[in-house]
Amino acid sequence: MRKKWITGICASLLSVSLMALCQGAAFAEGNSAALKEGNGKEVKNVILFITDGMSLSDVNLARWYQGGKPLEMDKHFSGLVRTYATDSLTTDSAAGATAYATGHKAKSETVSILPDKTTMPYIDKVPQQDMNKPLPTLVDAARLSGKSTGVVFTCELTDATPATFLSHAYSRENAESIAEQMVYSGVDILLGGGADYLVPGNGKMNRKDGEDLTKALKANGYEYVTTKKELMNSKTGKLWGLFNKEALDADFDLDPQQQPSLKEMTETAINKLSQNDQGFFLMVEASQIDWFGHDNDPVGIISETLAFDRAFKAAVDFAEKDGHTAVLSVSDHATGGLNMTNYDTAKDLMAVLNKAKHTSYGIEGKINEKNFKQVLAEEYGLNDLTKEETVAVRKGLKDNLSPVIGSMLGKRIGISFSTEDHTSEEVGLFAYHPNNYKPTDYAHSGVVQNIDVNKYIQEITGLQLAPLEKSLFVSAGKFTEKGAEVALDKSDKKNPVVVVKKGGQLLKLPIDKNIAVMDGKTIKLNALTVIIQNKIWVSQDAVDLIR
Amino acid sequence: MRKKWITGICASLLSVSLMALCQGAAFAEGNSAALKEGNGKEVKNVILFITDGMSLSDVNLARWYQGGKPLEMDKHFSGLVRTYATDSLTTDSAAGATAYATGHKAKSETVSILPDKTTMPYIDKVPQQDMNKPLPTLVDAARLSGKSTGVVFTCELTDATPATFLSHAYSRENAESIAEQMVYSGVDILLGGGADYLVPGNGKMNRKDGEDLTKALKANGYEYVTTKKELMNSKTGKLWGLFNKEALDADFDLDPQQQPSLKEMTETAINKLSQNDQGFFLMVEASQIDWFGHDNDPVGIISETLAFDRAFKAAVDFAEKDGHTAVLSVSDHATGGLNMTNYDTAKDLMAVLNKAKHTSYGIEGKINEKNFKQVLAEEYGLNDLTKEETVAVRKGLKDNLSPVIGSMLGKRIGISFSTEDHTSEEVGLFAYHPNNYKPTDYAHSGVVQNIDVNKYIQEITGLQLAPLEKSLFVSAGKFTEKGAEVALDKSDKKNPVVVVKKGGQLLKLPIDKNIAVMDGKTIKLNALTVIIQNKIWVSQDAVDLIR
Repeated sequence: MRKKWITGICASLLSVSLMALCQGAAFAEGNSAALKEGNGKEVKNVILFITDGMSLSDVNLARWYQGGKPLEMDKHFSGLVRTYATDSLTTDSAAGATAYATGHKAKSETVSILPDKTTMPYIDKVPQQDMNKPLPTLVDAARLSGKSTGVVFTCELTDATPATFLSHAYSRENAESIAEQMVYSGVDILLGGGADYLVPGNGKMNRKDGEDLTKALKANGYEYVTTKKELMNSKTGKLWGLFNKEALDADFDLDPQQQPSLKEMTETAINKLSQNDQGFFLMVEASQIDWFGHDNDPVGIISETLAFDRAFKAAVDFAEKDGHTAVLSVSDHATGGLNMTNYDTAKDLMAVLNKAKHTSYGIEGKINEKNFKQVLAEEYGLNDLTKEETVAVRKGLKDNLSPVIGSMLGKRIGISFSTEDHTSEEVGLFAYHPNNYKPTDYAHSGVVQNIDVNKYIQEITGLQLAPLEKSLFVSAGKFTEKGAEVALDKSDKKNPVVVVKKGGQLLKLPIDKNIAVMDGKTIKLNALTVIIQNKIWVSQDAVDLIR
Repeated sequence: MRKKWITGICASLLSVSLMALCQGAAFAEGNSAALKEGNGKEVKNVILFITDGMSLSDVNLARWYQGGKPLEMDKHFSGLVRTYATDSLTTDSAAGATAYATGHKAKSETVSILPDKTTMPYIDKVPQQDMNKPLPTLVDAARLSGKSTGVVFTCELTDATPATFLSHAYSRENAESIAEQMVYSGVDILLGGGADYLVPGNGKMNRKDGEDLTKALKANGYEYVTTKKELMNSKTGKLWGLFNKEALDADFDLDPQQQPSLKEMTETAINKLSQNDQGFFLMVEASQIDWFGHDNDPVGIISETLAFDRAFKAAVDFAEKDGHTAVLSVSDHATGGLNMTNYDTAKDLMAVLNKAKHTSYGIEGKINEKNFKQVLAEEYGLNDLTKEETVAVRKGLKDNLSPVIGSMLGKRIGISFSTEDHTSEEVGLFAYHPNNYKPTDYAHSGVVQNIDVNKYIQEITGLQLAPLEKSLFVSAGKFTEKGAEVALDKSDKKNPVVVVKKGGQLLKLPIDKNIAVMDGKTIKLNALTVIIQNKIWVSQDAVDLIR
């Protein structure tokens, strides 16, 4: 912690009256606001990017796609992050993002709960009674301290990364529960994809519990928008925007009249959240780098990495003007194991790559058995397919064309993928701080743990998760300790309700909501009521309602 | 440059009398020597490690081999380095190391000369007359400024990386010339392998020019040693030690009675070089990470990465005590494209990997058609070969067994290699500086160019290559300009001599030596006389000898 030693040395050298100046000078970077305060704790706003699945080789590829010109993120690269889960060298996104959201390493596939399995090193074991306990997140801490909060992404809202900041689950697959928790999470701004998860219907993502959560949003004072035009015209500070039934289109593919870019969503979120004098916490996920890594599609990786870089620049531009904002970017893990071994020049590489107009997802609707030669020529400049490639394309059309296109382009530019899975490598840490105090300074190491990034955010903002871990979620057994009876009313199977009775008092706590109904009156709680592995966890203030 | 803005701010805030204190305070890190001087320029000593071919995934693997415990280098990780050559996205070691040695990007395969081909971006074009001109290196700058200099490595001395610091060649393959230049380079300490390159003989590495360069070393005041015992007993400050005819053995394989480890060579070099009050420059190469990358041998990568880490620790330990030493580590490029995707635990990984006793090179002499099952079981715990693996081993025994063993181990621990070649990825930058001023501060970016590392070293030490680029090597045409006649005497074909005549003056400049013979008297020159692509380059002080 650079702050500490400077303070110490200044104290021994200078009189107290000059100390404040010295501290300020040592931290300031030509910014007068920072100069005045000169203290890491003065950071009011944090914008945390998570580039899902982005490896440093992905970044390299995106850089060469633009001829080797440094990316915006390059300047701010400051370290490596170790991402392993409590039970695996290689993590999934749920455990990976939980570490950033909560400051705790998690078991693979779990969403912001304490692990019930810890077999990896350098991780505290969890006592039996706390296993699977929901963990407060940075969004909770920010919200409860009076800051505004936001979550932006390009996947469906229930995907692991946004889920970890706003919900809790033993399995990331519990999408219906996760979506409902998010609606009742109290987050101010949520922008991304996955609208089908909010409404009943016959689609595979539609709700089976019959609830129309868009109504709940409106009842709770949110504006709910589904088009870019509505987003751009929005004047409210509590806003949900889901711009596609499923995930958003990749940056190379999206219709800019219909869907906002990651940069536009980020800027809108910042504009709205920064109205709060107390500050804000915003998580922005570049969600699909991971998917294109899984599908071994270098064009998709470039599309999403550059889209992230533009959004990151927008955030840093805001932070530089604002003077009280830190911007971070990390990945939950890397995906695909992209490797480049290319002895040509940048120009040769660009001659091939810059012909690619869309990602492999973007041509899904238009390529078929009959037209593939024409489409591949038009969309990728691939007009010289070998016999083997033609066979592979025909097979890919029935199965998955993405890696086939990736492989054809890869051969021409010296790119290969090691896996269709995640990798165990360290990911990049990119950081902007008004006084240049970075997570690597916090951790005293250029290689940090993913949970260090969370703890760093707590330190620079003064937000504290430890007290919330004691008070925010407690076992429903706390009611029993108070002499109350607790039962789970499953009469509406898809919408169970915790029912607490003591004397004449009747308290109802609907699962996945932050609501208590006490003797007929509705009360908003600090946290959600959730069930994890058949155990009920409730907000401490729900317990306090029982006398 | 952190120094500059602190100075600026302090100047505007504090009186001049307090400024020195403020500067000191801002830079100091609990080190009283640094506190007193508080200026980047006060760094007297630089230890530059080059981990040939080391990728960040190699580092990750080495870390997990020891159960996930942070490596010494981790703490000092501070950025990424772009390594491309002037003519290729992916560089070879000669061009890669030339960038660090000289501050100029080079054409692939060339050794510390200006490029005659520049097709990659962000590189200044070289004027026609300067193409292939030998470039002064950090060793030259240090030597001519009165510092001591050293080069340590585990390959043969003529290999690309050590070669770039002490010689100049259009092709790194010119081993005979390179070895001779190194002998006459003026370097104080040289420790590594490749003794055969110094003496005549029938081996493929033996000299064909008939010269016994060990005699030249002794004549020039060097101690020349070939055993570890001699090294440990050495009391001199001018020392060459070559501890094997060819490269040294890998760390897992070497006989500690016979060959010193990289750490031992590094410590010995530091001990000797640090006797000079004016400071020193030491380059230490962990040479063989690259080779095991080419051969896709994860055990070799671990062996050499951990050996480097121990040597790096020894250097940082010295630097921390000394207070005037910067330690850097970079790679020329990465090799092999190692990928790990392992969903097991660290314990599972170690259970397989820790059975490996030697690298694939280390068992070369003892494994054969008859005993391979036993040897693989004993040496690697591989006692469950499949039929396919048995076939592959038999084939490997005739061809190259390393990647076969690598692949068998790799399958068991989720490791694969993308290539047997170099890769285009960025490499890691590890840096220790007494005042925490890093190359990334110099470059104002977390992603730096390889040449920035050289320029950073110039900045912190005050060494300057630009003036030497004008004066150290000049075209032999300078003699003609002075009215002299220049001829190349090839009467001894393998030892040509430049002969310069003017009036009654006769100057002889043997190629690849730093020697002038003027009217029968031998004079030591500032630089070597070299021929690059048929053009003769001489030391300016040789030109000055002609009146």
